Amino acid sequence: MSGRLIVFEGVEGAGKSTQLERLALRLGRHGRMVRRLREPGGTAVGDEIRALLLRPGALIPPRTEALLFMASRAALVGEHVRPALARDEVVLLDRFFLSTYAYQVGGRGLPEHEVREANTFATGGLVPDITVLLTLPVDVGLQRAAQRGFADRMEQAERGFHERVEAAFASFAEPAWQRAHPECGRIVLVEAQGTADAVEARVWQVVAAACPEVHG
Amino acid sequence: MSGRLIVFEGVEGAGKSTQLERLALRLGRHGRMVRRLREPGGTAVGDEIRALLLRPGALIPPRTEALLFMASRAALVGEHVRPALARDEVVLLDRFFLSTYAYQVGGRGLPEHEVREANTFATGGLVPDITVLLTLPVDVGLQRAAQRGFADRMEQAERGFHERVEAAFASFAEPAWQRAHPECGRIVLVEAQGTADAVEARVWQVVAAACPEVHG
Repeated sequence: MSGRLIVFEGVEGAGKSTQLERLALRLGRHGRMVRRLREPGGTAVGDEIRALLLRPGALIPPRTEALLFMASRAALVGEHVRPALARDEVVLLDRFFLSTYAYQVGGRGLPEHEVREANTFATGGLVPDITVLLTLPVDVGLQRAAQRGFADRMEQAERGFHERVEAAFASFAEPAWQRAHPECGRIVLVEAQGTADAVEARVWQVVAAACPEVHG
Repeated sequence: MSGRLIVFEGVEGAGKSTQLERLALRLGRHGRMVRRLREPGGTAVGDEIRALLLRPGALIPPRTEALLFMASRAALVGEHVRPALARDEVVLLDRFFLSTYAYQVGGRGLPEHEVREANTFATGGLVPDITVLLTLPVDVGLQRAAQRGFADRMEQAERGFHERVEAAFASFAEPAWQRAHPECGRIVLVEAQGTADAVEARVWQVVAAACPEVHG
């Protein structure tokens, strides 16, 4: 069984989607079956939850927001992630646990142990094989995100929120934090500044080192 | 502080909404400020979640369903229930914890302890003062519900599902079950067969006995 779950995480504008696509193409050239997924969404009910969560102006209290992300996650894991892993595919997932810890615990201030329990409920205890954490100063990320010309409800949150999210992402790099969070699996940092080609090469290096079997 | 949370529970067609309205009118005549709420829904985001949950034909896996109910509950508790209790109002709530235990644990088969943790996360540990559990044979309830001429996604579930839900509601009457579930607070059974007037008199009796202060 060589199905693998590889998660991409990082602040907004860090290049998660771009790098996920590039890794997918590369794995495909190595003959691997790849499944690309993103959170929230990816299922019929998940896409409706995504629309609800990201609509600018929607008033959603923090616990409700966290539970909506979990609801979408539960559907994605049950309908797509677990079946693909069972078929020995490589699943590339854009956001997972770390985003919940960053946005709902760090950003919104919800109690971490409660969020962890809700997370476990949503996934049935699934742990990624590797999480690629793309690192970038928050200013650079927000500038990149702003260039898309559209800000969703999460991106529109106040500056302090984004700083708390960035601080949370920074804390995930600490070995002590990682030891205390086995549910997040192995986390590897990748510097996200520079050209997309340069970042792609770094991602390939860490994925090949962590999961040598994924590229065939 | 005499704010009180009174929950109505029972199988479909047991008369929860009717009896809740009647109790609200009666409490109003006794000079109490009453807040009527129902699950899922009751907030802007909750009403959207409600529409998603009840739409006939929607494909929603069990854990996602449970988390969507919790997401709606978190918004209702934070935006309406707690503020109303803080203003010394009597909150009458159509469905709460027991429905989750009946439908998502009994009916869908999710692990009880995980659902309890998600529940606690959603409500921040709020416990009702009294839960009025309206009891009715499942056949009578489904007949009553069918007479409404519209079946939502939950009502359309297969017969075995409704039997498991009924068995769960029956188990809530057992003292051993109640002792093991302090998070549900005090549960009082009310026979729901007979005229609405007769049931109303029974409800009034148990509410007056359990919360003598609510009627002023």
